[in-house]
Amino acid sequence: MKRGSLNNYFSKGYANRGMSLEGDINISNKYYLDKDIAIIYKKPTPIKATKIVYTKTSSVITEGFFEMPSTTDYNGIYKGRYIDFDAKETNSKTSFSLNNVHSHQLKHIDNVYNHGGISFLIIRFNLLNKTYLLPSNKIELFIKNEKRRSIPINFIENNGIMINGKYNPRLDYIEAIDKYILEESNYDAKKK
Amino acid sequence: MKRGSLNNYFSKGYANRGMSLEGDINISNKYYLDKDIAIIYKKPTPIKATKIVYTKTSSVITEGFFEMPSTTDYNGIYKGRYIDFDAKETNSKTSFSLNNVHSHQLKHIDNVYNHGGISFLIIRFNLLNKTYLLPSNKIELFIKNEKRRSIPINFIENNGIMINGKYNPRLDYIEAIDKYILEESNYDAKKK
Repeated sequence: MKRGSLNNYFSKGYANRGMSLEGDINISNKYYLDKDIAIIYKKPTPIKATKIVYTKTSSVITEGFFEMPSTTDYNGIYKGRYIDFDAKETNSKTSFSLNNVHSHQLKHIDNVYNHGGISFLIIRFNLLNKTYLLPSNKIELFIKNEKRRSIPINFIENNGIMINGKYNPRLDYIEAIDKYILEESNYDAKKK
Repeated sequence: MKRGSLNNYFSKGYANRGMSLEGDINISNKYYLDKDIAIIYKKPTPIKATKIVYTKTSSVITEGFFEMPSTTDYNGIYKGRYIDFDAKETNSKTSFSLNNVHSHQLKHIDNVYNHGGISFLIIRFNLLNKTYLLPSNKIELFIKNEKRRSIPINFIENNGIMINGKYNPRLDYIEAIDKYILEESNYDAKKK
């Protein structure tokens, strides 16, 4: 750690210690894994290695390119359910644009939902210091009813689930999934 | 395709057209996805990019290294269930050595099973042209009862599920998962 960076670390306040959303999720996933709560990993970034030099002890990539991920960044299992999501940050204070999500990712999230999985976006409003879980069925609801690509924050507040920042896990999105599962079972009970 | 390679393609016979196990699984996954049967992807190979050159239009990795995967190669969802597996080939005709699987991968597969997922190894005996799905609980059974690291083929024949090669999907491991789910429900019914 650089001199002075510790001050910086604390001055940013509890819920935003200068860590990215991805960092917060990775550290939370490690917590869930260590406590045997859930098994969720970030997928590696897809890279196409076009030149590889083989030495006696290892292989070194000397030319490679980043590729477009075919699905989302995170998946795994919780309470026997298949979990699948992507995480996005925005500096807007008023809305989240779906242009931040590739269309094949939206399709994948919807597809997972139709197969009985739990899929969603984690959306962080950096400047508001607020993070939400927005379930795939609510994203579909928005896309179906609205022509615009920008989801207003009040839609996310009303249809998403607020994710609380904590000491440990840093970003307790499993708590939000529990709320989602509860709503889902209430909805299923009503249908019967 | 190179001149002459088409001959080679057919001369190898139906079930082994010169495609690797990985190739067979990837092409089967595409089939399952296209037919909306299951959503299963191979995870990208983890690469640590240590030098990246940024140009106006793209980023080129000029130094990178292959990293050890933290989990298995494949995961996804089928019939609402979380699916997780790795695929291994062996040239032995008599046994499959667990030394081919990293200990953290075995631990991961066992962990997924304990969380209610369906986890297994797909093991291909190249020289016998036979491929099996060996469920995690049977792997654990072997490890618990045997000191040796080599699983004899008759254990795999008795405890695994044969995977049939077909025209489409190339390697119908979902059919084997269906058999696994059926056994699982019979076992659960007996317990009640």
